[in-house]
Amino acid sequence: MASRGLFITFEGGDGSGKTTQAELLDAWLRERGETTLRSREPGGTEVGEQLREIVLHHRGEISSRAEALLYAADRAQHIDTKIRPALERGEIVLQDRYIDSSLAYQGAGRALGVDEVRALSVWASGDLWPNLTILLDLDPDSARERLDSARTRFDRLEAEKSAFHGRVRTVFLELAAAEPERFLVLDATLSIEDLATRIRERVSALLAA
Amino acid sequence: MASRGLFITFEGGDGSGKTTQAELLDAWLRERGETTLRSREPGGTEVGEQLREIVLHHRGEISSRAEALLYAADRAQHIDTKIRPALERGEIVLQDRYIDSSLAYQGAGRALGVDEVRALSVWASGDLWPNLTILLDLDPDSARERLDSARTRFDRLEAEKSAFHGRVRTVFLELAAAEPERFLVLDATLSIEDLATRIRERVSALLAA
Repeated sequence: MASRGLFITFEGGDGSGKTTQAELLDAWLRERGETTLRSREPGGTEVGEQLREIVLHHRGEISSRAEALLYAADRAQHIDTKIRPALERGEIVLQDRYIDSSLAYQGAGRALGVDEVRALSVWASGDLWPNLTILLDLDPDSARERLDSARTRFDRLEAEKSAFHGRVRTVFLELAAAEPERFLVLDATLSIEDLATRIRERVSALLAA
Repeated sequence: MASRGLFITFEGGDGSGKTTQAELLDAWLRERGETTLRSREPGGTEVGEQLREIVLHHRGEISSRAEALLYAADRAQHIDTKIRPALERGEIVLQDRYIDSSLAYQGAGRALGVDEVRALSVWASGDLWPNLTILLDLDPDSARERLDSARTRFDRLEAEKSAFHGRVRTVFLELAAAEPERFLVLDATLSIEDLATRIRERVSALLAA
């Protein structure tokens, strides 16, 4: 990485607590005097928000290849115009979803292979990988319960069946096992404060390094 | 190609007469009893029209990679949901712009290499190439004169400088030279009727084959 900042991504299924943990880490880092940038995929730029609407809420058919390319376009715009400049300024970027989500959702869950989606993501991002990826691991049934109680509007991905989310979870765990240095895998059923503490410990070590 | 139909694309700079010639060929084919489908890139599907708006009329910065991926997403959606099914039904598809435009505009005109853009396009299209590509060749200054007299609203690509359009033209001609079997190159300053006659001759030969 040709940058001075720190790039931290949060991964896991919907309902696993990514947003809550990103907020807590963000507040903690700012208290320590760090400059942070919170972002998310899909979305995160003006163009990205338009693409997010298309990908998540289009009513007709979207082909698997088109969906993968839309996520990749969002990623390229996001990385090129927002994330890379922030990292070059030395900021800490906290991002909700990144390449691993593409691999888990598009690669394993859909018709496309993980290798194809990885190649596309690598090209879109200019080969930018996170310094740390926090995977909040949760079994799909528990995630479903959390979402049912908290939300009223389900998007296209959330409406997929439980089996799909089971495959997504498996790919996330496989990705983490393949790159133990980059990943911190946490049991998302732990308490919010326990999770936050473990995340702070790992980030502290990264900042000290 | 795993299809029974015929896939014909029209290429060339804006103002070269692609739309007029596609209309004339379409009318001629329908008179002969053929079933045709007219389409265009970017656009051509509901999702594609939304992407077209973003690519052509977004006011802020769009990174080169994001732009290439948006065109690729439009292409994947278009080919998967519209063109391939039409070809499989045995129809004749007449399309305004395709892979060669991506190579000419994104590959040569922008920061990305032709080989990278080609790989992206091949993936997006599932390696679908036209049976015939009609290149209406016109020098950029003549094209500019035609556009100035006919149009009032210029999009982002049209607003680029003449030098850019000169490079685009060169890439189109190089692509045609590399694949003489696929390309029919015509001087766009010929009369509308002369151009239409030459196009019909080539298409007649294809239909007879």
